[in-house]
Amino acid sequence: MSDLTSVPAADPVYRAAVIDLLGVLAYGELTAFERLAEDASLAPTLADKAELAAMAVAEFGHFARLRDRLAELGVDPSEAMEPFAAPLDAFHEKTRPSDWLEGLVKAYVGDGIATDFYREVSAHVDPSTRELVLEVLEDTGHAAFAVDRVRAAIAEEPRVAGRLALWGRRLVGEALSQAQRVAAERDALSALLVGGVDQPGFEPGFDLAEIGRMFDRLTEAHTQRMAALGLSA
Amino acid sequence: MSDLTSVPAADPVYRAAVIDLLGVLAYGELTAFERLAEDASLAPTLADKAELAAMAVAEFGHFARLRDRLAELGVDPSEAMEPFAAPLDAFHEKTRPSDWLEGLVKAYVGDGIATDFYREVSAHVDPSTRELVLEVLEDTGHAAFAVDRVRAAIAEEPRVAGRLALWGRRLVGEALSQAQRVAAERDALSALLVGGVDQPGFEPGFDLAEIGRMFDRLTEAHTQRMAALGLSA
Repeated sequence: MSDLTSVPAADPVYRAAVIDLLGVLAYGELTAFERLAEDASLAPTLADKAELAAMAVAEFGHFARLRDRLAELGVDPSEAMEPFAAPLDAFHEKTRPSDWLEGLVKAYVGDGIATDFYREVSAHVDPSTRELVLEVLEDTGHAAFAVDRVRAAIAEEPRVAGRLALWGRRLVGEALSQAQRVAAERDALSALLVGGVDQPGFEPGFDLAEIGRMFDRLTEAHTQRMAALGLSA
Repeated sequence: MSDLTSVPAADPVYRAAVIDLLGVLAYGELTAFERLAEDASLAPTLADKAELAAMAVAEFGHFARLRDRLAELGVDPSEAMEPFAAPLDAFHEKTRPSDWLEGLVKAYVGDGIATDFYREVSAHVDPSTRELVLEVLEDTGHAAFAVDRVRAAIAEEPRVAGRLALWGRRLVGEALSQAQRVAAERDALSALLVGGVDQPGFEPGFDLAEIGRMFDRLTEAHTQRMAALGLSA
């Protein structure tokens, strides 16, 4: 795997894929910031509000790191993010939480799947890009917070579990549908996912079995997260 | 003016006033964070969005400083903020921007008045509290940003100026009405404003002429801000 700074001229497909990866992550972090800030406004207590706001701030820090890396690569961060604005906005439009608990489940379950997915992608990039990707994917404390609050809410009123389980399934469905849209439009990024970019004379030849195994891993991790919340997947 | 750490036992009224001041500022910064994050979601470009988000993050930093100071004083930050949640929330409920430009005017004009007001109050507190208050009131870059964007919008479409001028007047009216509510409910804080707390055997004796001069200064600065936006006050 070559270092990114050495490849741009030599391998424009790899460069395009990495810029896509950084761009989609940057837009994801920026919207994570907005979403957590919005969730903060639904928080039942001032302490919860402050905690959510702190997590939003941490996401913005991740965004800033990605934006700076894009700038270092000579790319306008806005341009790199632009192709992903519509699908990510559509996802958030279609999965707008109607209350505090739905917001927590969305952040935990939705971000969890996205994080697992980007970790899969990061296996196929150069070490310096991978390091940055893994750094910005680090949990900002939201997971433990969400699990704690959701479990407490279910303990207090068991019947919310059914509604939240349904919500979790809807989140996954919408995420898949938007991910498909991105995959269809961004060839280089899709090829990167299946390790097709690093080949000389690259041809987008997807390894279907490997994609299947990746989906198994994502599904397994998702089921575990739902269980951690006390919900059936 | 005595140092706060030396007065709590000796002067409970002064301590109560300072806790109120830090509490209202902390809640103000936390809601400023939320509001700027919300404005970010209305931003017309990704670059504007990122800039607004960065300002929101700076406001959260201010909030964190105030929260930490409250904790140092042995006060639960949530308890100190609680009395101000209702009036500040009411202000924001009643002045919800309907678009990006109204959000910018609100942040510049509304925060401008609030900042001037807290600066007036800071003249009456001990040096260590004053230093913190002035630090968290520092402009996070929003003023220049708002002036630039609003002037450009008016240059492009002069008729928006009338609507925004009206909006500016409504903001001031709502701010005054909520400030009155706070003043009526928080005696120690009100007394601090007019320098009445530092007297031995303190009696809330307001200096009406001084309050009048303060309102003149606030009005003058407000008129200048509206002019900077290209709006009549």
